[in-house]
Amino acid sequence: MTDTIELRPIGRVHAREADGGSEIEVHEQFVDGLEGVEEQEHLWVLYWMHELGPEDRQILRAHPMGDRDRPKRGVFALHSPMRPNPIGLTRVRLLERRGNRLRVEDLDARDGSPVLDIKSG
Amino acid sequence: MTDTIELRPIGRVHAREADGGSEIEVHEQFVDGLEGVEEQEHLWVLYWMHELGPEDRQILRAHPMGDRDRPKRGVFALHSPMRPNPIGLTRVRLLERRGNRLRVEDLDARDGSPVLDIKSG
Repeated sequence: MTDTIELRPIGRVHAREADGGSEIEVHEQFVDGLEGVEEQEHLWVLYWMHELGPEDRQILRAHPMGDRDRPKRGVFALHSPMRPNPIGLTRVRLLERRGNRLRVEDLDARDGSPVLDIKSG
Repeated sequence: MTDTIELRPIGRVHAREADGGSEIEVHEQFVDGLEGVEEQEHLWVLYWMHELGPEDRQILRAHPMGDRDRPKRGVFALHSPMRPNPIGLTRVRLLERRGNRLRVEDLDARDGSPVLDIKSG
């Protein structure tokens, strides 16, 4: 019931701060998984919020949007980064693919975040 | 770069076959995370496709929709269950919450699937 599950990152986020765009670098051993991705306009990106520590994963209630004037709610009723398994989920627009690199718009992941999965979206 | 990441299931799917509905049972230690969830109409559910084996996680190209008449594409350009980290992602309608159980519509997870996360959606 509480067996742990092991994931292996398939890539990594390179956040570029100037224009808000980001790049996803897919690790070479997974590059065959990108075949045809350039035909997609939007993708779902699942990434690991690696800057959160073990103590953040204990938090089950949080203020909506971090706004302390709003009463706390359960993290499963929110989009808060705090949650037992801090997997980030964002739908991005694919701007360009170059080899193992995807240039995308609207990815809210921090620089260096491990990427767990990419799905058509 | 390829450090593994450990997840702990926060619940489990009970698929009911008669009407296509499902229940998500949230494990007791995570139940505080559900506070206020009953106000949500839709939720994102992330679950683990536990019936896939290690060999399925090696597959990087698959036929779209499993249709062998269509040429293979990379799994990151598809919604195929085959992928290095087989995390299922579905937006469901929340019908009812009773304690640690959520009755939902449209969840395509198999019975017994470990639930990894629930987000407002």
